[in-house]
Amino acid sequence: MIIDIHGHVSMPDEAWVYQANLVSNRARPWKDPGRPSDERIAEAAKGHIALLQKAGTDIQLISPRPFAMMHSIRPEKVVHHWIRYVNDLIAQKCRLFPEMFRGVAGLPQFRDTSPTNCLEELERCVKELGFIGCVLNPDPMEGDGPPVPGLGDEFWYPLYEKIVELDVPVLIHSASCVSPRESYTLHFILEESIAVIDLLESRVFEDFPNLKIVVSHSGGAIPYHMGRFRAWAIRNGEQPFDEQMRRLHFDTCNYSSEALELLFKVVGSPSCLFGTEMPGTGTVVDPGTARTFDDLRPVIESYDFLTPEDRDNIFFKNAQELYRV
Amino acid sequence: MIIDIHGHVSMPDEAWVYQANLVSNRARPWKDPGRPSDERIAEAAKGHIALLQKAGTDIQLISPRPFAMMHSIRPEKVVHHWIRYVNDLIAQKCRLFPEMFRGVAGLPQFRDTSPTNCLEELERCVKELGFIGCVLNPDPMEGDGPPVPGLGDEFWYPLYEKIVELDVPVLIHSASCVSPRESYTLHFILEESIAVIDLLESRVFEDFPNLKIVVSHSGGAIPYHMGRFRAWAIRNGEQPFDEQMRRLHFDTCNYSSEALELLFKVVGSPSCLFGTEMPGTGTVVDPGTARTFDDLRPVIESYDFLTPEDRDNIFFKNAQELYRV
Repeated sequence: MIIDIHGHVSMPDEAWVYQANLVSNRARPWKDPGRPSDERIAEAAKGHIALLQKAGTDIQLISPRPFAMMHSIRPEKVVHHWIRYVNDLIAQKCRLFPEMFRGVAGLPQFRDTSPTNCLEELERCVKELGFIGCVLNPDPMEGDGPPVPGLGDEFWYPLYEKIVELDVPVLIHSASCVSPRESYTLHFILEESIAVIDLLESRVFEDFPNLKIVVSHSGGAIPYHMGRFRAWAIRNGEQPFDEQMRRLHFDTCNYSSEALELLFKVVGSPSCLFGTEMPGTGTVVDPGTARTFDDLRPVIESYDFLTPEDRDNIFFKNAQELYRV
Repeated sequence: MIIDIHGHVSMPDEAWVYQANLVSNRARPWKDPGRPSDERIAEAAKGHIALLQKAGTDIQLISPRPFAMMHSIRPEKVVHHWIRYVNDLIAQKCRLFPEMFRGVAGLPQFRDTSPTNCLEELERCVKELGFIGCVLNPDPMEGDGPPVPGLGDEFWYPLYEKIVELDVPVLIHSASCVSPRESYTLHFILEESIAVIDLLESRVFEDFPNLKIVVSHSGGAIPYHMGRFRAWAIRNGEQPFDEQMRRLHFDTCNYSSEALELLFKVVGSPSCLFGTEMPGTGTVVDPGTARTFDDLRPVIESYDFLTPEDRDNIFFKNAQELYRV
C-alpha cells in the first residue's frame, strides 16, 4: 500500500486560460466561468494517473499547484475566485477517480490579510467537498514586501482554530516568489525552513496540541542542519531540538537518495510520510538511474537500515493515521 | 595538519562598548577610539586558542563576527568605522599569534549601496594588513527591506574585479537579520542557499573564471536538495547540476555527522574545506558525544568512506591551495 500525501491537481488548458484572464482583468468584470466537463478533467488526469500507476502509488492527496496559487496578486477577489475554482477542480477529479485521489484544500490567502479570510473556503472544502487536509503558505506575500508574521505568531490562530475544529492536517507549502533572487522551487525550501523554526520556537503546539502539521520537501534545510539547532537549543535552555522536531511531520519529497537517508535517520520513520509531488519538478528522467527523480519508492525500498515497520510507517501508516485516509 | 578556514575574531569588552556607542550615537560625534592594547587582545584570545589547541587545529582563518557586522545600520559611516576597527583587531590578533591566525577581511557593505564602497577597505586589508581572504554578505539589508540583487548580478562586479585582482577567496556569510521570522543563525543558512543558486544560474564564473568562492555552513540547504536542482537543471537544459556545483567550495561548518557525510558524498572532497566557526554556535557540549558540536575533526576522521587523500583535501590541502596559507 502506497499513499502519496504530496500531489497537485493537473488542470486542463481552460483552467490556465481562466487564470490568465483573471490576472489580466483583475476579476473585473467577473463572471463564473463554469467548470471544465468531466471528460476534460479525465483527459487532463490521464498522464497523471499513468505515472502514479507506474510508480505503484495507490492513493494520492492532491492540492492546487502551489506556484500558481497567486496569493500576492491584487485585488483579493482574484485569489478568492481562483482558489475556489481550483478546489472545485480537485473535488471533480476526486469524484471521477475516487480510488486514486483525495482532496487537499488550497486557501485563498491574500498578502498580509488575516487568514480569517480563509475560514469559509476551508469549511466548504472539508464539509461540502469531502477534503481531508489543507495547504498553508507561510509567505502569502510571495516575497513582494515584508513577510507576514511567522507561523508561530497569533496572526495565524483563527486559522489554526478552524483547522483543529475540522480536524484536518496542514501541509506547509509556499507558493510563487517575486524576488529575482529566488525561484519558486528554492523559495519552497527557504519558507519551509523558516516555518519549522518559527513553529518550534513558538507556543503553537501548547495552544493547539491537536494541530497536525506536515512540512513539505523533507523539512527544507532543517534536517541537514540539525547539529546547528541542537547546539542553539542547548545554549538557549530549550527542550532538546530532536524532541522539538517530533511535533512535526515531514514528507519524503526530496529527490536524492543521500538526503532521504539522512531524513529517516535524523527524524525517524514515525515522523515521515511518503510524498513525491508527482507529476512535478522531479518528473524528469535521472540519467543515473533511468527512472524519474520523483519515483521514490525504489529509493526508500533500497535502504537496509529501515525495518518493515519503518517502511509501512512511511508508505502508508502515518498517512492513514494523520489524514484518516 | 589542520587548517580551519571559518573562524571569527574574539573581541575584548572595549570593542563591544565601542560598537554599542557607535550604534547609539550613529557615529556623530565620532572620534577614533584607538585600539585595545596587545595585552587585552591576547587576553581575549586565550580561551579561543585553548579551544583550537584542544581540537588540534594548527591554523585558523578569522574574520569579523558576522552577526555583529551591522551592514544595515544607518548611516553608512557607522559600518565604515566599525568594520575598519574590527579588521584592525583581526590584524592585531594575527600579529600576536602569527602561527595560529590568518586574517579574513570584513567589508563595510552598506544596505543597498554599491559594493564599490568596499574596495578601499578590502585593498587595505590585503595589501597593508596581509589578509588572505574576505567575507561577503549577500544580504547587506539584513532583511530590512527588499534585498539587493543576487550574487549573480552585475551589481557585484566591481567587487569581484577587485577580489580577482587581489586574488583572495571569498567566504559567503551573511550577517544579522531584522525579520522576526529569522534568527541570524537561520538567516545564514537561507542566504547561503540563495547565493549558491543565484551564482550558478549566472554568468559570474564565465566573466570571472578565477573567482574563488567558499560557501559557509556546508552550502546552506542545497547539498540536501541536490535531486531537486538536478531535475530542475535537466528540465531547463542547463549543465548537469553536479558539474555546476564544482564551481564552488563548501566548508564543513555543519554540526551533525549525517549531514557532513552527505556533503562529502554529494560534492566530493576536492570541494570541501575544514571549517568550524569555533568558538561559535557549536561551542557547547553535545550530550551524545561529550564533545562540543564544533569539534569536527573526530567526526570527519570517523568516516570509513573517506580515503587518506580525501581527508588531506578537507583538512588542509584545499585550504592551502585556495588561500595560499
